[in-house]
Amino acid sequence: MSQHKRILSGMRPTGRLHLGNLHGALKNWIQLQDQYDCFFFVADWHALTTDYADPTAIRQNTWDMILDWLAAGLDPHKAVVFIQSQVKEHAELYLLLGMITPLAWLERNPTYKEQQQQLNTKDLSTYGFLGYPVLQAADIIIYRAHGVPVGKDQLPHVELTREIARRFNFIYHREVFPIPDALLTEAPVLPGTDGRKMSKSYGNCIYITEPEASVRQKILQMMTDPARARRTDPGDPEKCPVFEYHKLYSTPDEIAQVTQGCRTAGIGCVDCKKILLTHVVEHLGPIWDKRQALEKDMDAVRASIEKGIEKARREAQKTMDQVLETVGLGKNV
Amino acid sequence: MSQHKRILSGMRPTGRLHLGNLHGALKNWIQLQDQYDCFFFVADWHALTTDYADPTAIRQNTWDMILDWLAAGLDPHKAVVFIQSQVKEHAELYLLLGMITPLAWLERNPTYKEQQQQLNTKDLSTYGFLGYPVLQAADIIIYRAHGVPVGKDQLPHVELTREIARRFNFIYHREVFPIPDALLTEAPVLPGTDGRKMSKSYGNCIYITEPEASVRQKILQMMTDPARARRTDPGDPEKCPVFEYHKLYSTPDEIAQVTQGCRTAGIGCVDCKKILLTHVVEHLGPIWDKRQALEKDMDAVRASIEKGIEKARREAQKTMDQVLETVGLGKNV
Repeated sequence: MSQHKRILSGMRPTGRLHLGNLHGALKNWIQLQDQYDCFFFVADWHALTTDYADPTAIRQNTWDMILDWLAAGLDPHKAVVFIQSQVKEHAELYLLLGMITPLAWLERNPTYKEQQQQLNTKDLSTYGFLGYPVLQAADIIIYRAHGVPVGKDQLPHVELTREIARRFNFIYHREVFPIPDALLTEAPVLPGTDGRKMSKSYGNCIYITEPEASVRQKILQMMTDPARARRTDPGDPEKCPVFEYHKLYSTPDEIAQVTQGCRTAGIGCVDCKKILLTHVVEHLGPIWDKRQALEKDMDAVRASIEKGIEKARREAQKTMDQVLETVGLGKNV
Repeated sequence: MSQHKRILSGMRPTGRLHLGNLHGALKNWIQLQDQYDCFFFVADWHALTTDYADPTAIRQNTWDMILDWLAAGLDPHKAVVFIQSQVKEHAELYLLLGMITPLAWLERNPTYKEQQQQLNTKDLSTYGFLGYPVLQAADIIIYRAHGVPVGKDQLPHVELTREIARRFNFIYHREVFPIPDALLTEAPVLPGTDGRKMSKSYGNCIYITEPEASVRQKILQMMTDPARARRTDPGDPEKCPVFEYHKLYSTPDEIAQVTQGCRTAGIGCVDCKKILLTHVVEHLGPIWDKRQALEKDMDAVRASIEKGIEKARREAQKTMDQVLETVGLGKNV
């Protein structure tokens, strides 16, 4: 893919980001923004598909997430950073794509039934929840994106977007939409403080803007290899969540040192964690500083996102002009 | 209902209107525009729910229908006359309402399965077709309409709109949407030239802008009571489609005269039709003249519809401001 290729990706506004989000997706975005024409957005309409009954947190979460994005290094001068619900054209294209999308494609979407079961305290037998892959397709193809960075679990969604784009081009005999490719991202899956997958619902997250004292405490209390009950018991780094962090943050020498120390009980868990902590604080320090600076100048943040929204809107309108001409509805009367 | 009450209604852009449309709906609209705050629109997005595979005629049909509306007496200075697809807010509200609409409500919609069977040459197992009552609800409640003039067959749709509006108000603890009432219209059902229901698909229509010679020919060739095979056979007006037209167009004296003449074979079918024809031509004459005048000044027609679109957009935006504030998405960043 050349520099002229366009990349699109979005995140639901879940609020403050944790280290899992940072290493799983955001770091990748920050790399991509230097290589491609990137569009990154807050998927606030998507948040409604599951949180329609209590959407009060969406607005606050949107800005918390944007601040974290920018603090971590996403640069609105390099990438177009915007909020989905501010570009109404997504809704218009969603409506038009819905007309050509067979229900069977949506019903067989593997995550549809799966999420309904997982989120069984919410009533997800709604029209909007069934149609979120149509909205997702609109989000992507309205920018004529060539690539969509995704994890393995999201491959079926991109496949559905490709099918919808192909069907539109086929029905209207015109290559209006490029068929986007999934860019499979091999991102590390960072465990939470209890060793399970880091997730808000488990309460095991380390947030990237958490105060230093709290990060220290969480890491020092983090679960280690359960076999190492006493200081004198040897451990297995491969069974220790802390070691996953070392792999990301520590130097090769340090990794060798803690591996050896753990296996021989030559180093205690606290000392092992202190080595890690130095690096985590080093790494997060600039993010904390940037976050504080951004919070003091929210007007500038809002202005940069407003610019992103305008850019996104212009691009979306360009595509919609073609779409409406193709479908025969006409932009103007 | 007081004058301050708002009425909303739309028609799919099927092209030129026939006498069935005129007497079944349009005459009613023309009366309503003097009594209420009326919004009338071309439902071009709805046309896509069934005609997505070949939408080429929609734009032409839109303008043919608008010209017929205005020629028949719909007045853009009295009512807000606009085109659905030009007010993108309908799509935005459709998306938001979809989030709270249970699939079961749409699946049990009686016309859903019915239309799929009737229009069995088209593939209507699409997401958009299933969701057209959601779009219809958005069309109505985005203007906070109090009344929707409908025929009996459309009562279930208005009921669905009422349920969706109620559910929105309930979920978000706020009476954002008035619950619209169905205004049941007792309109005459005018038979086509072959005695069946007048319908484009039967090829039995008399169009309101058809040339006079063609209207004459169609009425003179129109089916009558089949029992009156010869001039000397007596007939039964209640079995004659022409008599339905007399009821609408002729004077009480003339109706008495043709009733008596038919039953006694005192009048021939041609003479009976000639009495009718005088009135039909009298009635359609001004519509033909108005249509010609409008066609000569399409710029003025477009300008008046453009104004209607702007008015509709302003009203829709007012509602969306409230909706977004209520849902918590915020109009501005």
